[in-house]
Amino acid sequence: MSRAVQDDLFALIIAGGRGTRFWPWSRRARPKQCLSVDGGPTLIQQTLARITPLIPVERVLVVTSAEMAGPLAEQLPDLPPENLLVEPVGRNTAPAIGWGASEIARRAKGRNPVVAVLPSDHLITHEARFRAALLACAEAASQTNALVTVGIEPDRPETGFGYLEIGAEVGQWHGHPMRRVRRFVEKPDAETAARYVAGGQHLWNAGMFVFTAEAIRDAFRQHLPHTWAALERLRHSPERLNEIYPTLERTSIDYGIMERAPYVLTAPVDLGWSDLGSWAALAEHVPASPLGRARVDAAIAIGANDNLVIAPGKLVAMVGVHGLAVVDTGDALLICPLEQAQRVREVIDAMEREGLEDYL
Amino acid sequence: MSRAVQDDLFALIIAGGRGTRFWPWSRRARPKQCLSVDGGPTLIQQTLARITPLIPVERVLVVTSAEMAGPLAEQLPDLPPENLLVEPVGRNTAPAIGWGASEIARRAKGRNPVVAVLPSDHLITHEARFRAALLACAEAASQTNALVTVGIEPDRPETGFGYLEIGAEVGQWHGHPMRRVRRFVEKPDAETAARYVAGGQHLWNAGMFVFTAEAIRDAFRQHLPHTWAALERLRHSPERLNEIYPTLERTSIDYGIMERAPYVLTAPVDLGWSDLGSWAALAEHVPASPLGRARVDAAIAIGANDNLVIAPGKLVAMVGVHGLAVVDTGDALLICPLEQAQRVREVIDAMEREGLEDYL
Repeated sequence: MSRAVQDDLFALIIAGGRGTRFWPWSRRARPKQCLSVDGGPTLIQQTLARITPLIPVERVLVVTSAEMAGPLAEQLPDLPPENLLVEPVGRNTAPAIGWGASEIARRAKGRNPVVAVLPSDHLITHEARFRAALLACAEAASQTNALVTVGIEPDRPETGFGYLEIGAEVGQWHGHPMRRVRRFVEKPDAETAARYVAGGQHLWNAGMFVFTAEAIRDAFRQHLPHTWAALERLRHSPERLNEIYPTLERTSIDYGIMERAPYVLTAPVDLGWSDLGSWAALAEHVPASPLGRARVDAAIAIGANDNLVIAPGKLVAMVGVHGLAVVDTGDALLICPLEQAQRVREVIDAMEREGLEDYL
Repeated sequence: MSRAVQDDLFALIIAGGRGTRFWPWSRRARPKQCLSVDGGPTLIQQTLARITPLIPVERVLVVTSAEMAGPLAEQLPDLPPENLLVEPVGRNTAPAIGWGASEIARRAKGRNPVVAVLPSDHLITHEARFRAALLACAEAASQTNALVTVGIEPDRPETGFGYLEIGAEVGQWHGHPMRRVRRFVEKPDAETAARYVAGGQHLWNAGMFVFTAEAIRDAFRQHLPHTWAALERLRHSPERLNEIYPTLERTSIDYGIMERAPYVLTAPVDLGWSDLGSWAALAEHVPASPLGRARVDAAIAIGANDNLVIAPGKLVAMVGVHGLAVVDTGDALLICPLEQAQRVREVIDAMEREGLEDYL
């Protein structure tokens, strides 16, 4: 039974994110998923390596933008070129997933494959546990026709994530209890988040979804009928991609589909997961250094600590400074207190205003 | 008269300084004199260009170390190779000047040339005035046989320089009043420095000296007889440089000769002079930028100012930081509050301790 599902299990990696949030470490042509946090494989390489023991690379599809297709192909030499789906324009995650699922259905030639939608730029420490959970979700999706989401057991009152409010257990697959999702909750305030963590009835929504191609197609037909119709046209006329894709509705899979779907299940898991969504979250996974956390060639700290320094190949000497983010990429250098990291947005704005787009 | 002196006027540029004080901008193989403060010619190039309208390059000699000979020759393509005097070992300024003056006397073939000793890494804004003062000093040196020093009229109570206490005027040359130097004063404390500036009887000792070859030879014979004897041996056997030079006494021209000489004259001048002796002094001559002072390709300052940033060819973005020295040299990056700049010494020590000599 499990073997049958696994043989029809595809991965759809969403790698279309634009890369200025961690500027200048991340860039338009080197978005977050193409970064190496610890000096080893990049996040997208880790993402692929993490699933190939379960899903062979021939059944892994990656959706991305034209701008990032080159860098991604370079980083994923084993990915068959036809498995890189290049959006003519960005339309958020719902169209990307709709298109990807439709492509997977076409390639499955009449069978009803299971699709595991995975972010390209997250970190998962417990990889074997992750694959076991994914397989359990695939079994559940295949047998129940539900949309299934991986729910992360929260270990802190994080206000930066959406939450899943969970309901009754509907059964177990491979020893994983599967529970109803009562509703999707937007990012809560601190007090609400604390209540969620204490109550034990909420999980983090990590953006990982598992469903059959038929189930997601039905969901699009019901909740995003215009996009569904356009995807149907695209399925029959794939050569019309550049004409049809821009007509898809700009919406996220969470808002456009998952929050509206009547029957969503989740497997509560502890995967050592991080979305690496902020400088502080990234810093936790950068190697320790006298400077604080650092990816450098050599470090000299004279009364300096708690800094995050990204300057591969360089000797970095810091004297008497604390809590600074320092990012050196050869052509650009950012220096910013970690606690003001959100102001990097202002740097991006200023660069756009001053015509420094080459550095974006 | 003036013509005759000018025809026998030589320049002796002292360029042996080691380059770690402004690390990592300056390096052993790229000492301060090889830096460009404003993005134009380097300090040594400016030094040469400043005197060649008065003294042709054939009569300019440069004393330096083996380590810096290559970089200097590269920066001074017009300097005849035989005019680069390479010390086998460093022995401070007195031996360097004694050797240089001896070489100049040899090349002057029996005449008594005038030698202008000049630092290689200072800044002079009023260049024509500088050359006029140098020529006046040369006339005075030629006619009086005195050791002459260029005295800078102080405009602030600087505690980082030595001072000249001045006495009576002994005459005027080319309209420049020339005064006796009563004594050389070591770096004063702040109160004393303030008194000097208010009193009008003190000038800064800028390390620029003018004397005839005979006068300086006499001074060595009298005040550094051991070194004088060794220089005489070297004059007759220049091929024994590597053997003789290490035997010269390690001492500065100020301490070994000038402070002991009974008859020293000075021309008080205002040359827009700076010894660029500290990060703060350097910063004044780096171009203004939203970041503070900066040599960068492009600058983005978000609530950041009063910084000194050296990162040629780079976009530098700084958020919410003030008073930082940031120096990026491709292989090394230093971040240090300007007011803690003296702690760069600790960085150098740490690098030596940790075997990071390649970065010195």
